[in-house]
Amino acid sequence: MNKIVVAIDSFKGSLSSREADEAAEQGIKTIFPQCEVLHFPVADGGEGILEILTDAFHGHTVPLVAHNPLMQKITTQFGISEDGRTALVEMARISGLPLLPPSRRNPMLTTSYGLGEIIAEALNKGCRHFIIGIGGSATNDAGLGMLQALGFRFFDHDNKLLGSGGQILSRVAAIDTTAVHPALSEASFTIACDVDNPFYGPRGATRIFAGQKGATPEMTEHLEAGMQAIAAVIAQTTGKDIGRIPGSGAAGGVGGAFLAFTNARLMSGIDLILTHLQFGKRIQNADLIITGEGSADAQTTMGKVAYGILREARKQNIPVLLVAGHIADTPSLYTAGFSGIFSIAPGPVTLEKSMHPEFAATHLQRLITQICKLLQAFRV
Amino acid sequence: MNKIVVAIDSFKGSLSSREADEAAEQGIKTIFPQCEVLHFPVADGGEGILEILTDAFHGHTVPLVAHNPLMQKITTQFGISEDGRTALVEMARISGLPLLPPSRRNPMLTTSYGLGEIIAEALNKGCRHFIIGIGGSATNDAGLGMLQALGFRFFDHDNKLLGSGGQILSRVAAIDTTAVHPALSEASFTIACDVDNPFYGPRGATRIFAGQKGATPEMTEHLEAGMQAIAAVIAQTTGKDIGRIPGSGAAGGVGGAFLAFTNARLMSGIDLILTHLQFGKRIQNADLIITGEGSADAQTTMGKVAYGILREARKQNIPVLLVAGHIADTPSLYTAGFSGIFSIAPGPVTLEKSMHPEFAATHLQRLITQICKLLQAFRV
Repeated sequence: MNKIVVAIDSFKGSLSSREADEAAEQGIKTIFPQCEVLHFPVADGGEGILEILTDAFHGHTVPLVAHNPLMQKITTQFGISEDGRTALVEMARISGLPLLPPSRRNPMLTTSYGLGEIIAEALNKGCRHFIIGIGGSATNDAGLGMLQALGFRFFDHDNKLLGSGGQILSRVAAIDTTAVHPALSEASFTIACDVDNPFYGPRGATRIFAGQKGATPEMTEHLEAGMQAIAAVIAQTTGKDIGRIPGSGAAGGVGGAFLAFTNARLMSGIDLILTHLQFGKRIQNADLIITGEGSADAQTTMGKVAYGILREARKQNIPVLLVAGHIADTPSLYTAGFSGIFSIAPGPVTLEKSMHPEFAATHLQRLITQICKLLQAFRV
Repeated sequence: MNKIVVAIDSFKGSLSSREADEAAEQGIKTIFPQCEVLHFPVADGGEGILEILTDAFHGHTVPLVAHNPLMQKITTQFGISEDGRTALVEMARISGLPLLPPSRRNPMLTTSYGLGEIIAEALNKGCRHFIIGIGGSATNDAGLGMLQALGFRFFDHDNKLLGSGGQILSRVAAIDTTAVHPALSEASFTIACDVDNPFYGPRGATRIFAGQKGATPEMTEHLEAGMQAIAAVIAQTTGKDIGRIPGSGAAGGVGGAFLAFTNARLMSGIDLILTHLQFGKRIQNADLIITGEGSADAQTTMGKVAYGILREARKQNIPVLLVAGHIADTPSLYTAGFSGIFSIAPGPVTLEKSMHPEFAATHLQRLITQICKLLQAFRV
């Protein structure tokens, strides 16, 4: 065993990607002290992508005071690549659900304005390419807040300038672009989003995600009508019908806003990371790749981190091991192509205990040690 | 992967040794359909040893009406080897804890008499060698009941013939052997016992095991005094001091009774099985041995089934995998020499659910499949 790549997603609520990687490395080194262990930090489009991208682009982070989802000023940060051309942004850091306690989550009010402020600041600093992870947002405003921060203005039927939050969606009658940031048209955007939900409809942004962002059933109905209405206005204004495009519903419609008003493409977060971090090149000659996530289930084979890694590894015929806090009894998981799927659980245990960081790290390390021991016994 | 031996102990209260082996085999065959899978049924000195020995000796079972621990007649059975010379006995089938509901367990009353009846019957049928598993007994009578059924008589200080149960221990003043079964002295006994507790004392039969056999603290004190008293009487009668011999406390002192009054040797149940079933020979050329048990813990390395198998396998440098319902976080377990210790738990789960036979079999099979898949990926 000469080289093992560890690329474990965060065990959400328990271990970060880095902590999981470190526990796995300790397990490997117990049995194969000479083995090269290459850490490959991974994330979906949400939590953790800023550090990963900033590392990958040898960049630095820039502090900025901008508006949180309830339009209160906070200090946030984004990254700029070494060459100064690429801005690296994690939407959740300024417009994210973790910034609001559950009692204050209300997608009628929350706005993506802060994300627009970050983009404007980066444009001012000369960035013309953007890589933005839009996972974990608190908003369902179709990205109108972001656009407002970039100079777009939205008017109602009485030609009244509209405010912010999902509440304005159904009232927009016209979009004024005369004051839009002049550099926006020169910029290109790569958007990491991990959902393929459309802008509206039964699987659209609102019906699937508004609830977890604090919407009551009444709000959801109101917001869904708003998403349909604004899509029509956007189509009239731009000629682009984003209503049914997969991913346009990401981040409460921010995905669609990028597609309609900027030069943007959507990618899955893991594909973006694998591409930009040259995963294929770095895993060359690896004997084994260890990936993992908190819960391995049907979702695992639908674009989540582990499956993205599996796809790349198979091109080089490198075995991929999947470790998880919990393994669902899902046939598609077992036929996906992993060379082994193992749970870190040592036996009967409560969910709460299994998610305790120390417990999870201990048993992840134990599991990896035992797996390496098994391979060692067969002289791998 | 040409040959795998499965030798998994019962997951007590969940899967029998045979059921566990079958689940493991299904897992193996999913990945290695051509692999020879050799089942090696295992047990400690208790539950299941009768079938294993009867199979191993190409024997047959013999029905017999004898007395249960509360001196009620029940139908039980023992085995006789193909050549008719060796009797194969599982004490728990006639004097075992599972024969009594918890409310009726009372070691002041319970007797090993039925075990003696089986021995007498086998002697009558011409058996002169005995292999007896004495695990799982309901008794703490120093084997006096067994001896009574073989013709021994116990008298108190008033020369009154004593009855049965642990209550007589402290009252025995003399042992009369004039009516003992004449063939007993011609017989040899191999006793499978899985505890090394002495006859009395802080780690003796009574203080360690009487509680689980239904003794109140008062009974335990009374029985402990009785064990010390009867040991003294036995020493006077036979010249043998069994008080501190490891294993003499097995089955509430039945181990000691065999040592004092018969030509007997004590062995661990697994060593006995491994020896008589020619384990060493049958595992030749195996690529892997899979053993397991319900709970892997510090006990595992102290004479339990899995460790016995490990010891034999190491003589031939065959890797041994240990699978379990629960793995304790015990350093001695990890350094014992297993080439991998894995839990069948797929994630957080209650003890009750994890012990459900279908759940346990499913996840044992899943685990073995994944382990084989991993080995297959490395072309083992």
